[in-house]
Amino acid sequence: MKSFNTLLSEQIIQKKSHLCVGLDINPEGLGKTNANISDIIGQSYKVVDATIDLAVCYKPNLAFFERWGSEGYRWLENIISHIGKKSLIIADGKRGDIGNSSMQYAISIFNHFGFDAATINPYMGSDSIKPFIDNPEKGVFILCRTSNPSARELQDIKSDKQKVYEEVANLAVKLNNNNNIGLVVGATVPSEIRKIRNIAPKLPFLIPGIGAQGGDLEKSMKYGNDNGVAIINVSRGISFAGDMSSQAIRIAAHEYVTIMREIANE
Amino acid sequence: MKSFNTLLSEQIIQKKSHLCVGLDINPEGLGKTNANISDIIGQSYKVVDATIDLAVCYKPNLAFFERWGSEGYRWLENIISHIGKKSLIIADGKRGDIGNSSMQYAISIFNHFGFDAATINPYMGSDSIKPFIDNPEKGVFILCRTSNPSARELQDIKSDKQKVYEEVANLAVKLNNNNNIGLVVGATVPSEIRKIRNIAPKLPFLIPGIGAQGGDLEKSMKYGNDNGVAIINVSRGISFAGDMSSQAIRIAAHEYVTIMREIANE
Repeated sequence: MKSFNTLLSEQIIQKKSHLCVGLDINPEGLGKTNANISDIIGQSYKVVDATIDLAVCYKPNLAFFERWGSEGYRWLENIISHIGKKSLIIADGKRGDIGNSSMQYAISIFNHFGFDAATINPYMGSDSIKPFIDNPEKGVFILCRTSNPSARELQDIKSDKQKVYEEVANLAVKLNNNNNIGLVVGATVPSEIRKIRNIAPKLPFLIPGIGAQGGDLEKSMKYGNDNGVAIINVSRGISFAGDMSSQAIRIAAHEYVTIMREIANE
Repeated sequence: MKSFNTLLSEQIIQKKSHLCVGLDINPEGLGKTNANISDIIGQSYKVVDATIDLAVCYKPNLAFFERWGSEGYRWLENIISHIGKKSLIIADGKRGDIGNSSMQYAISIFNHFGFDAATINPYMGSDSIKPFIDNPEKGVFILCRTSNPSARELQDIKSDKQKVYEEVANLAVKLNNNNNIGLVVGATVPSEIRKIRNIAPKLPFLIPGIGAQGGDLEKSMKYGNDNGVAIINVSRGISFAGDMSSQAIRIAAHEYVTIMREIANE
């Protein structure tokens, strides 16, 4: 049985890509606030079909599915089965709760929906993380240093030893007995990617913040893939590229992958 | 237009109760791991019907609904409409993401499902909270000091000024311009309820950890309701009480409310 981190590294080598395609599709993104769920669903299938050979992972952001309630979750079930085994799939829900409740989320994400990995919020500590990491084939990316403007408010609180996000990185290393733990590290502050890589060599990084949020692709690739692997998430920059046609989506995704290959000398 | 915190205080006075009934129902709790979703749904309606005049709030824990995918979300839509306006309803999902994604969660929780309030994880800072607090009628309870054993790992990290959870309480006070912000404060460490009450007078507290987790009901009521209001969550202690019949559920809920009334002299 291969661990999630091994499966991820193999996908990166096989596809010569570090691209994670975020599925965050909403009416506002499509430029029509009166769009209904079938327009949105159509766009999501278009994105998947145009990028399936380029994407190491898809990362549906659960918020964009939950917006539509049970119908949105039906869409999520269907698109996961459409992607199948052709790519890894990460549930981006940033979940975390007391042990008994985290266990229900793990059953939902891994057993019911069949995701390969999940993003996890560490605020409640290790017992909120453990139910997600029992099965080595299923992975987590723990929020460490996020890409949003107010990330620093709590993540940069510093004890006499270190900052909260560094403590999270240490905790992740300590918990990684099954080789299935990674970290979410925003592209918006590249120097911190390097700092976290020093604390957590080998752990895969999921790096959001490229595109709409203005993160640095070159430094994210360099620091993230030094002594470990990194996947770079792009959501709006692909899903809503150009005129939003299949062709525009594919061109955008291909451009990202080409730049990544150049930086990585692949 | 009344703010959420005002609506909550009025419910507490009107029902002479501080009881929040958590809906965390799973096959394991029912004692039969082969239970299917219809057994679970049946139990949830039984709980609501037996406690509707005693519960100030219901708090469906979203994990227990997501476990069943789109069918679970259909159940959630239906039980919310069954409760209607007879009680306030809190979405216990501990959500939080970058602003654009938190906005989708807010649309899901408040507009699609029609919840009155939501629990929120503060790890990503204020821009992840703001989309939930624009509408004064809808409220949030921000995780501050949680009730689980590993809560201390990050929440107790201390800068030269204060601990992370104290920083969260300060942030909540600062953001509370619409009188719709509260805090989640676990019952398991009563001295900290008092400490947080000093930082955040007036903010309502949602106190979990009574029952299965061993929290202190008397101190939680006393410290929580001093200079503000507190609601006390009980999940398993009511949903799975005795032989799990409507009668056993009602007796358990009534017992909790009676003790709360005695402590509060109501």
